[in-house]
Amino acid sequence: MALIVQKYGGSSVADAEKIKNVARRIAATKDKGNEVVVVVSAMGDSTDNLLKLAYQMTSHPADRELDLLLSTGEVVSSTLLAMALEEMGYEAISLTGGQAGIKTNAAYSQARIERIDPERVVSELDKGNIVIVAGFQGITEGMDITTLGRGGSDTTAVALAASLAADACQIYTDVEGVYTADPRLVPEARKVDEIGYEEMLELATYGAKVMHPRAVELGELFHIPILVASSFNDNPGTLIHGGGSMELRNKVRGIAHDLDVAKITVVGVPDHPGIAAAIFEPLAKANVSIDTIEQNASINNITDLTFTVAKSQLDKAMAVVKPIAKSIGATECVSDSHLGKVSIIGTGMQNTPGFAARLFSTLSEKGINIQLISTSEIRITCIIGEDKVEDAVRALHRAFELEEE
Amino acid sequence: MALIVQKYGGSSVADAEKIKNVARRIAATKDKGNEVVVVVSAMGDSTDNLLKLAYQMTSHPADRELDLLLSTGEVVSSTLLAMALEEMGYEAISLTGGQAGIKTNAAYSQARIERIDPERVVSELDKGNIVIVAGFQGITEGMDITTLGRGGSDTTAVALAASLAADACQIYTDVEGVYTADPRLVPEARKVDEIGYEEMLELATYGAKVMHPRAVELGELFHIPILVASSFNDNPGTLIHGGGSMELRNKVRGIAHDLDVAKITVVGVPDHPGIAAAIFEPLAKANVSIDTIEQNASINNITDLTFTVAKSQLDKAMAVVKPIAKSIGATECVSDSHLGKVSIIGTGMQNTPGFAARLFSTLSEKGINIQLISTSEIRITCIIGEDKVEDAVRALHRAFELEEE
Repeated sequence: MALIVQKYGGSSVADAEKIKNVARRIAATKDKGNEVVVVVSAMGDSTDNLLKLAYQMTSHPADRELDLLLSTGEVVSSTLLAMALEEMGYEAISLTGGQAGIKTNAAYSQARIERIDPERVVSELDKGNIVIVAGFQGITEGMDITTLGRGGSDTTAVALAASLAADACQIYTDVEGVYTADPRLVPEARKVDEIGYEEMLELATYGAKVMHPRAVELGELFHIPILVASSFNDNPGTLIHGGGSMELRNKVRGIAHDLDVAKITVVGVPDHPGIAAAIFEPLAKANVSIDTIEQNASINNITDLTFTVAKSQLDKAMAVVKPIAKSIGATECVSDSHLGKVSIIGTGMQNTPGFAARLFSTLSEKGINIQLISTSEIRITCIIGEDKVEDAVRALHRAFELEEE
Repeated sequence: MALIVQKYGGSSVADAEKIKNVARRIAATKDKGNEVVVVVSAMGDSTDNLLKLAYQMTSHPADRELDLLLSTGEVVSSTLLAMALEEMGYEAISLTGGQAGIKTNAAYSQARIERIDPERVVSELDKGNIVIVAGFQGITEGMDITTLGRGGSDTTAVALAASLAADACQIYTDVEGVYTADPRLVPEARKVDEIGYEEMLELATYGAKVMHPRAVELGELFHIPILVASSFNDNPGTLIHGGGSMELRNKVRGIAHDLDVAKITVVGVPDHPGIAAAIFEPLAKANVSIDTIEQNASINNITDLTFTVAKSQLDKAMAVVKPIAKSIGATECVSDSHLGKVSIIGTGMQNTPGFAARLFSTLSEKGINIQLISTSEIRITCIIGEDKVEDAVRALHRAFELEEE
């Protein structure tokens, strides 16, 4: 008998029929003699509908109230799923995040799980119940309801799998697994059977939407192998794990891309210590996430400082940066919101010459201008015009022969 | 500074504009220097929508799951109301029933409040917050969410008022108070300014929908005066209280009616001890509520036993009674589902001759046949044909001169 944690996303439980379909899948897992814990997201667009209601009340809902409001979405889908299982003759119980012992800090809208007290989940499993846990939510020491922010339900699933020492953690979604590139852009993109945590982390961080990097990180930390597969069929999916063989491959595993990139350049900055801090500390305080940062070589002690942010944060970032630019004597502050990024990801990249060269020459052959470059041990990212991203992903997929096994 | 508990029903918070209207009323109460605790029902038809979802899953949802599902409706309206207040510049916090310390037994779908631990509500009031509490729900010792069943939000409000030793408990709804009869039936029906708990209890139990008898009973038990008034205007409403002067009035205070009446007659029952128990114990076990019971004078040790149930319970009741009737040697078992009841209610009725006579003669003049009669100290109820109820209410309203102060 194995203990299996399954997670089903919002599109998998979008309506009554889909919930029943998910119930049948869960039942099949139970029938194989497994103990099953299920984490479920809110139905389809129910979170958006709750947000709409909130914004009819105020343009700035308090995070605490918004979290309590949004948490109802996952409670609804959890209870309905438990009912569907009961109708099929299975014993099931739904638990809120709080009832499931998911204790978080009080950082509303982006709470972090501090610990899981799994007693209730364990006792319900011991009674023979299938345990349905509302994803995306937790409870503070003061009994306030929090939500976990982006990737929340995936994170709930991986954290529960870790705390229960589950035998498997399975993330069921509306795609069939992890692809070498977005199949909507690259028809010949290939699903990979397995991938290392680090590679998946980079893929997720740099644009692959299939799983949130936060949940991948947690899986790596607690050594939880994570299966990503479709909830609509029985195809095998992709196993994310920490298998050592990964490191030796020295191969590009996938191409990630992201169209949500804007660039800010502070032009003519007097180059002396403390300048970067003067700009980036206020941005951090304003909760603006900075991605790539580049500083030109200084000429006559004058330099240009360029960095990227999400498009939705550009206005906020400019409002913070402009007065600072003025106060530190910079010439001007310019932005470009028509950007995207494309990344190649694979272990061993830094130890193997030729990856970067092939990347740059491929983009160059396509006449694509590279505006910024950033790298990690297993990733090279280029910031390019947003209208060039599709071309770039397709060309790179071919150049690195990702359509082949 | 007074502490005021207000309750707003589902029709008062049915949409964004109505929630904002309620927020303005709460703000006005706060502006007068009061501490305010607000109990709120689910928005308009949201509970019905959740029920629809549940019944798409199964025809018999487990009570525990259904309660957890339905409890989200009040959480949604509570958070939205808190947001509306914040938008107006007021500090407000919403609490689930569990967070507000409303501890119940585990009788899902009809849980009873065992106690209220008001620490969190008190501490939020101390911080200057308007406290919004999700009505109709509580939490068990085992941290499971319960709902309180019919009249739940009214009960939440009165119980909170009792536990907080509030100065006032105000139930705001879509009617202007308690009327001498249903104004939809009797245009000259008059709103009463005040009414005693007992009278209100009989009115509520025998058909006046304005407030649930359970909440009235709780108000009487803890001596909480309850104001029932409209949430859509500032008219004074009706104060339900225990003022002693009531007892001396010896006057009919109101006419209640109810169209939800069905009758079962077990014909030709051999009359010996234990027969009534043989019939009514199994009905109680099947959760069928019996209202009026009448047993004819026995002739040759054979009697007829007649009782009434809600129309929705008739089939269930007949299924229980038929085999019993057979087993005890009764001739047959007949039912009539086209009935209603009309009641006159007023303190001192039993001590004052003439009320019953005037009731019967009024119905007789209208050619209305009385099928069953039941009485309490302050009420006389007649079961009549459902098509006669409107006529009866109007005639009795005139006969007892209720249109006059």
